[in-house]
Amino acid sequence: MIIVLKNNDQNTIAELQEHFGNTHEVFVHNNRVAVQGIKEADLSASERAAATDIITNVPKAVQGSREFHPEDTVIRTKHSVIGGDNFTMMAGPCSVESEEHIAKMAAVAKANGATILRGGAFKPRTSPYSFQGLGEDGLKFMRKAADEYHMDMLTEVMDDEHVKMVAKYADIFQIGARNMQNFSLLKTVGKTNVPVMLKRGMSATVDDVLNASEYIAAGGNHNIMIVERGIRTFDNKYTRNTMDVGVVPVLQKLTHYPVIIDPSHASGHTEFVTPLALAGVAAGASGLVVEIHDDPEHAFSDGPQALKPNEFKELSDKAFAIRELLSTGMPVEQAEAGR
Amino acid sequence: MIIVLKNNDQNTIAELQEHFGNTHEVFVHNNRVAVQGIKEADLSASERAAATDIITNVPKAVQGSREFHPEDTVIRTKHSVIGGDNFTMMAGPCSVESEEHIAKMAAVAKANGATILRGGAFKPRTSPYSFQGLGEDGLKFMRKAADEYHMDMLTEVMDDEHVKMVAKYADIFQIGARNMQNFSLLKTVGKTNVPVMLKRGMSATVDDVLNASEYIAAGGNHNIMIVERGIRTFDNKYTRNTMDVGVVPVLQKLTHYPVIIDPSHASGHTEFVTPLALAGVAAGASGLVVEIHDDPEHAFSDGPQALKPNEFKELSDKAFAIRELLSTGMPVEQAEAGR
Amino acid sequence: MIIVLKNNDQNTIAELQEHFGNTHEVFVHNNRVAVQGIKEADLSASERAAATDIITNVPKAVQGSREFHPEDTVIRTKHSVIGGDNFTMMAGPCSVESEEHIAKMAAVAKANGATILRGGAFKPRTSPYSFQGLGEDGLKFMRKAADEYHMDMLTEVMDDEHVKMVAKYADIFQIGARNMQNFSLLKTVGKTNVPVMLKRGMSATVDDVLNASEYIAAGGNHNIMIVERGIRTFDNKYTRNTMDVGVVPVLQKLTHYPVIIDPSHASGHTEFVTPLALAGVAAGASGLVVEIHDDPEHAFSDGPQALKPNEFKELSDKAFAIRELLSTGMPVEQAEAGR
Amino acid sequence: MIIVLKNNDQNTIAELQEHFGNTHEVFVHNNRVAVQGIKEADLSASERAAATDIITNVPKAVQGSREFHPEDTVIRTKHSVIGGDNFTMMAGPCSVESEEHIAKMAAVAKANGATILRGGAFKPRTSPYSFQGLGEDGLKFMRKAADEYHMDMLTEVMDDEHVKMVAKYADIFQIGARNMQNFSLLKTVGKTNVPVMLKRGMSATVDDVLNASEYIAAGGNHNIMIVERGIRTFDNKYTRNTMDVGVVPVLQKLTHYPVIIDPSHASGHTEFVTPLALAGVAAGASGLVVEIHDDPEHAFSDGPQALKPNEFKELSDKAFAIRELLSTGMPVEQAEAGR
Repeated sequence: MIIVLKNNDQNTIAELQEHFGNTHEVFVHNNRVAVQGIKEADLSASERAAATDIITNVPKAVQGSREFHPEDTVIRTKHSVIGGDNFTMMAGPCSVESEEHIAKMAAVAKANGATILRGGAFKPRTSPYSFQGLGEDGLKFMRKAADEYHMDMLTEVMDDEHVKMVAKYADIFQIGARNMQNFSLLKTVGKTNVPVMLKRGMSATVDDVLNASEYIAAGGNHNIMIVERGIRTFDNKYTRNTMDVGVVPVLQKLTHYPVIIDPSHASGHTEFVTPLALAGVAAGASGLVVEIHDDPEHAFSDGPQALKPNEFKELSDKAFAIRELLSTGMPVEQAEAGR
Repeated sequence: MIIVLKNNDQNTIAELQEHFGNTHEVFVHNNRVAVQGIKEADLSASERAAATDIITNVPKAVQGSREFHPEDTVIRTKHSVIGGDNFTMMAGPCSVESEEHIAKMAAVAKANGATILRGGAFKPRTSPYSFQGLGEDGLKFMRKAADEYHMDMLTEVMDDEHVKMVAKYADIFQIGARNMQNFSLLKTVGKTNVPVMLKRGMSATVDDVLNASEYIAAGGNHNIMIVERGIRTFDNKYTRNTMDVGVVPVLQKLTHYPVIIDPSHASGHTEFVTPLALAGVAAGASGLVVEIHDDPEHAFSDGPQALKPNEFKELSDKAFAIRELLSTGMPVEQAEAGR
Repeated sequence: MIIVLKNNDQNTIAELQEHFGNTHEVFVHNNRVAVQGIKEADLSASERAAATDIITNVPKAVQGSREFHPEDTVIRTKHSVIGGDNFTMMAGPCSVESEEHIAKMAAVAKANGATILRGGAFKPRTSPYSFQGLGEDGLKFMRKAADEYHMDMLTEVMDDEHVKMVAKYADIFQIGARNMQNFSLLKTVGKTNVPVMLKRGMSATVDDVLNASEYIAAGGNHNIMIVERGIRTFDNKYTRNTMDVGVVPVLQKLTHYPVIIDPSHASGHTEFVTPLALAGVAAGASGLVVEIHDDPEHAFSDGPQALKPNEFKELSDKAFAIRELLSTGMPVEQAEAGR
Repeated sequence: MIIVLKNNDQNTIAELQEHFGNTHEVFVHNNRVAVQGIKEADLSASERAAATDIITNVPKAVQGSREFHPEDTVIRTKHSVIGGDNFTMMAGPCSVESEEHIAKMAAVAKANGATILRGGAFKPRTSPYSFQGLGEDGLKFMRKAADEYHMDMLTEVMDDEHVKMVAKYADIFQIGARNMQNFSLLKTVGKTNVPVMLKRGMSATVDDVLNASEYIAAGGNHNIMIVERGIRTFDNKYTRNTMDVGVVPVLQKLTHYPVIIDPSHASGHTEFVTPLALAGVAAGASGLVVEIHDDPEHAFSDGPQALKPNEFKELSDKAFAIRELLSTGMPVEQAEAGR
């Protein structure tokens, strides 16, 4: 249940916390107090009197809900602002391959509007005998490249021990699709204050991903992004996954966290990455995370879905243009001039 | 196998038809001759010599393939040009409800850029006890409305006998998702020269829908559009289906038929129709087919997914703007001026 | 709404029919009267007084529901009894290939417990260029074979015109998975009195298949079987479809129609047909429909999933044994002796 | 590639290990040597001469494959033998609820043929605010109950730190469906010698689960069972998941690990658990893992799918009867007498 109070009614907030805090989960956001598992009859007369509204139909993932937190979450990192009216480009190679290579990719990403550098140092591969990433060396190379190009660094954490090590280098943690319901890991990153990019599992429902994000929020970390990266359906002959573009407006209705599109994993094939990216932008996504590589055929992993620098430039130009068209109503050239 | 000849090599075309026409399916498109089920060794020396290229890896649905017909199919009706560089808007109510109502909806559709009026007179309802449509009266009302507003008329055919009756009124046949593999019906419309809008079945793979379209082509009717209207996946809590936006570039690579997006059935909820429509346009679709209604709450069918006139205006404006941005590179205002 | 009356209360039944028959769908089964779309308040005082029970939570497919028709439907053909405590084996080739071949397959089927001969004369093939069946000749050959071996003949009808022709030969109509929502066809067979075997579409929900069956029942034909033949899921690398064995008890709870398992289409590979068939029997299915062929490698269609005669014998022996074990509790040898 | 040698050709095995061991993954099972990523041409003349067979088409999950390890894996714990010709029953409550309750459930399980006691002390719940299990106390209670009834103890491990603690109590680790691709956890249990019951993820393909099992095998732990617990499909109105019974014979063809059926999670509703369990047995599963509870309505978790003691007795009697019928060919009563 969510009790909506007048602004700055700190007295009732304190009263509710004292009343329910020892026996129930109590969350406060501005003038809204969520208390899990109570009924209206459980409120005292003064608590009821102070309420301007009482919302009873509340999802389990209450902290992530619009009912509890109506305004958009906006995440601020050193070089980026994510969510709200902003549009954020993230790009980089699937794996960190060498100190030189990640720097080269950072240059390409930055030159085309990306403010966040993505790359994997620990890779969750389907087979134990596939390349598993450069490990901590990869993190160091990536940090250096990000610093050189004034970008934020986004990389995946795969288990509790990684979290400590990766936290020394990264600006944003990624939780991969296969770990979306690794609740131990979610709890661990929830106890940090590092922003988290949570990828929707390949068969996760909308409710599943919202509940997974709530594990992070429950620990106190509210800097969360949710990523659509394609789901599993009956047809994967021509694309690796099926991008569920409809989840963008659905999630934006239900939650205040920024919604990001990963067109690379959704398609799995270079030639379809740009149309999927633009579809995501047109549907209203707050950003894109795109895999790029200067020599995809020799990439250490996921080469077939990596865009070459010139392809990424084309994607980025069109993505920003569509975003500006939708958000400003301004003619594109003007908007571009102001970019 | 497809034998590519020099342009206007009518002699070899005649030779191939004589050689294989009695025993195999032989199709000719310009300088390309497809012969089903033969090997290169089956060609005569002169046939082989005349070939500038021989394509052996050919899909079963050969007439619909880019290998056989590299250029886009462009369908010309009285009021519309569909496919190629064109963008076509189709709109109307789910069901024809009355003579007045369909005329009113035609006015709204036309005023916002639609050149094709959609509406159902025979409705394929899940339950036999639901409203089944106005029947032939509905067709008459719709024809009148289309004529009044100088639009083409698009409506569903449900069985062989419908085809004859509907052909008296409609400009374009629709084959519904549930009938996508009703091969008798496909064969029947294949023998007409009325353009066909074929909806992808809710669990049809890309290959399935291409093979279904080939049943129409096999009868001699090549005026085919393919519609993505959402597929069935594991999550339908917030949207009725999952719109597979990736199928737009995939189909455009594989086939020359125009690809249309139906955001209404894909979402099932008004609030998500516009983002899905724009996603489809951004992915490159050749058109949209949208359900509209001035009083959705009292619609005879599918009210929850029907856009009101002002909502449709907003969708249409943005859809044309994105299309023009992507296809012309021109600033939007200029492009609109020239529309 | 279903009004349950005392047995033989013909007066109230007549009263209800007169009261609602002109404005609502009214169905009567023994002492149960279903009236679509009314509320309890719509009943007259005498109607309410006569009711021993009123069931308000009723599915749309009311005639097929257990609420309306609690006891099992038992279908009696010349050589078979289907449903209730009976177990029915149906077998035959995918396609009728020749007069001799179908007779040979009938002999194999009958020798191993089948009382129904299956086979296709009109084949719904994915591609228009694949073998489409022998047509009416196939029906004649199959009729002859069925008569010779004292079996019932089961074959697919594909459109309205087929129905008339096929009715001259067949004892049971099959509606294929791709036509499960071909409502015109469902209505046509609903007007005959020939038993119908309705296959669940590959992405049909339980409610979808029940609603499809209601189209048949709405025409007056209540001799309906429902067949599970595998659904489409994300994994079809090793089996053609995913057999949803859980649908057997689910359907048996919801409907009174016999539930049949088709393990051949569900698996698509001979080596997995028998385990799937036995799983279906153990789950409680009323029968099996199995594809057999003496020379699968040269079958006209679906060879990879056809069992050879000796494989079918093994399947059949085990299937009957499990069925008898579950239904009689008797040791198997005794039960077999009494078969 | 797998090189098959004569039995006891230790020389060639040593030669191959020396030749490839520093640069490739090399695995030996009896007379079979798997070397990842080489071609036949990479073998020396003497290596090639010693080979009685060379298998080149080998799955990535080579240690789990039948090609590498043709005979069934049989796992021996203190009280159970799992795999091969054996049939193993596992049962217990979803969560350990108290010392008394787990003991009571152990008594029920044991009395009906179960030799393995299942129960959760750390629960992977969708929502962070749901009951998360009793923790280490639960493990202690469960150990005591298992010992009292001479059963093995099976419980879930959720992260690397759990593994150490749980290993002090449990005889078998469970990896839950949501952690099937938690590669860190798989690696950790792979380094122990505790048997592992790996649950197939709800959208995991057959290849995915085999690759996940290979992460365990790669660490040296080959005591692995694979569990089918239902997958996600488009229909979950009447059952929580769709049990993919066909995966039993498919996995048995591809891998040597025992395949177990979990009918409780597959159905989600008590009334469907027994038919699904029997279907799994009839398809050839090596065992069942079933949730039981004496008071399902007040269970701490998953009550709706828990069988009551008398229901479990009925399931167990029928399951053993079908298994014996299929494996012995003996009349059931005799077989039961010898049990």
